[in-house]
Amino acid sequence: MAIRVLHVGLGPIGVGVVRQCASRKGFKIVGAVDLDPAKIGKDLGEVAELGRTLTVIVEGKLGPVVKASKPDVVVLCTSSSLAKVTDQIADVLKYKLPIVSTTEELAYPWFSNKRLAKKIDALARKAKVAVLGTGVNPGFTMDALPITLTGVCERVDTIRVERIQDASIRRLPFQQKIGAGLSPDEFAEKVQSGSVRHVGLTESVAMIADAMGWKLETITDVIGPRIATKATRSQFLEVEKGQVAGIVQTGTGYDKAGQELITLHMEAYLGAPESYDAVIVKGSPDLHMKIAGGVHGDIATASITVNSIPKVLTAPAGLQTMRSMVIPSYFGGKTR
Amino acid sequence: MAIRVLHVGLGPIGVGVVRQCASRKGFKIVGAVDLDPAKIGKDLGEVAELGRTLTVIVEGKLGPVVKASKPDVVVLCTSSSLAKVTDQIADVLKYKLPIVSTTEELAYPWFSNKRLAKKIDALARKAKVAVLGTGVNPGFTMDALPITLTGVCERVDTIRVERIQDASIRRLPFQQKIGAGLSPDEFAEKVQSGSVRHVGLTESVAMIADAMGWKLETITDVIGPRIATKATRSQFLEVEKGQVAGIVQTGTGYDKAGQELITLHMEAYLGAPESYDAVIVKGSPDLHMKIAGGVHGDIATASITVNSIPKVLTAPAGLQTMRSMVIPSYFGGKTR
Repeated sequence: MAIRVLHVGLGPIGVGVVRQCASRKGFKIVGAVDLDPAKIGKDLGEVAELGRTLTVIVEGKLGPVVKASKPDVVVLCTSSSLAKVTDQIADVLKYKLPIVSTTEELAYPWFSNKRLAKKIDALARKAKVAVLGTGVNPGFTMDALPITLTGVCERVDTIRVERIQDASIRRLPFQQKIGAGLSPDEFAEKVQSGSVRHVGLTESVAMIADAMGWKLETITDVIGPRIATKATRSQFLEVEKGQVAGIVQTGTGYDKAGQELITLHMEAYLGAPESYDAVIVKGSPDLHMKIAGGVHGDIATASITVNSIPKVLTAPAGLQTMRSMVIPSYFGGKTR
Repeated sequence: MAIRVLHVGLGPIGVGVVRQCASRKGFKIVGAVDLDPAKIGKDLGEVAELGRTLTVIVEGKLGPVVKASKPDVVVLCTSSSLAKVTDQIADVLKYKLPIVSTTEELAYPWFSNKRLAKKIDALARKAKVAVLGTGVNPGFTMDALPITLTGVCERVDTIRVERIQDASIRRLPFQQKIGAGLSPDEFAEKVQSGSVRHVGLTESVAMIADAMGWKLETITDVIGPRIATKATRSQFLEVEKGQVAGIVQTGTGYDKAGQELITLHMEAYLGAPESYDAVIVKGSPDLHMKIAGGVHGDIATASITVNSIPKVLTAPAGLQTMRSMVIPSYFGGKTR
């Protein structure tokens, strides 16, 4: 029996999830909701640029779609901000439907958004379903994966994760999100206003710390520009020498003594010589893991969201995180 | 509250687990059982060469120890063979105690030992506790870790795992287990008799296949010698040119069409130029992961066993595997 999926939120990530659910075995898309008037009333296949119709019309309101389509699960891809999605989650939970969401701040809200986390957890328990925030980052490369690796350690002293991405092969919105092509001043302004940043480092640091049983005193999240040392370009953008090629962002967790226990270091810029994800665990044994080429963000976020759907259906009720879930795995379409 | 642990089986691996439980936070060793008359009656600290006593006397029978020590969990490290440990597991389950075991064939018995797997699962459900087989391999590097990595894939075509170990830094029993120092004929005899081999490749192949939803037609497990091309030595052994330096073993899973879907390739020999663990996933996206230096077998097997203890206490009743468990993680001593 295919899992009946209702998609809420049809931006770039939501549409990436739709594409996989439409093409992969084990799923039946039964409904789609978005607030954008330009999408409402259209066939979901058209909105997702599938080159075919899905005979699912995008609607503007959740309630009637739920009643008409009888979904097993809702995939929620509307915002990075937990404050913005909490009411949406509460709305879905009224219908006792489990949720998989790509909301970055939902990936591990127990540090920065504890009040909302408790609220969602209580609503989910009442609805007897699980709610999960996931994605490639936060959700995997900088939290669940390093946590998993420490499973073979008898002692862990520090954890450092590096995610270095050549942004020139990514989509335009991503290149804009990392500030490529801006002047250093423009970059600083956009960091100030919150429009240039990766959301989730604090969540990942907190997830790791709780998994290790470490009490952190402070978590910092510092953003700076990567300045182009020579002219560089992508399919979409040109960057002069001295302009911003991308972002350098580091999340750090410190203990009471000011010791740096967890360091999550990201660089995403045009012309990075090598993309990779690395985890360095200092302890016993030391571990040095590297994924050459890195984990491609756009595909991977949609993939882990889709792969999490069958797991959320059988997870305990409440607000779950990748730390509390059964190990991730590709889902080949057979539930059992 | 510390977790009260009863250790059954005090061979090299069991003793490695004892050492960690004795030194790490969160555990209290309350009992120890072994069949060896040379160990019975001695203090566990002496048997485990801790350099101190633990005021736990090694006993020969389980029942009285359980009654006297009121453990929360049993760690079972007695044999690689599921047939040999099934009665021991049944015995422990009479006392409704959860079990973490390093029995390699228990790591994923649903292919080769389905009847015993069903029996243990039924007994564990009846006892309302979880039973888990774990270890670094099987249990992590060649199954749970590659499965975890596929969580970011929208398609998986093939999975190849390599575990290459320079055995010269390992303990003597390991060097003997891989046949180092034997002639090629002696090696072949010992392979024939089953005394030179890694146990668990079939289990790992089956675990991966089930996680991917792949139906395999055949699983092969092929063992050969690594012949020394020059004289080499370890702290314990000397190997002449032409003698066996170690083992090469490959587990392979084929589909009905004879396609090789899963390949688990191990080499462990004196003088390997580089130790590493690698996972190569072909699919979308491709993934190339490498742990430089590899995951040290002896420490890691004891670590993942100890780290699994708190997780087994809260796992659903029945026979669990690393595939059905919450993601692995270092356990810092605080349960919650």
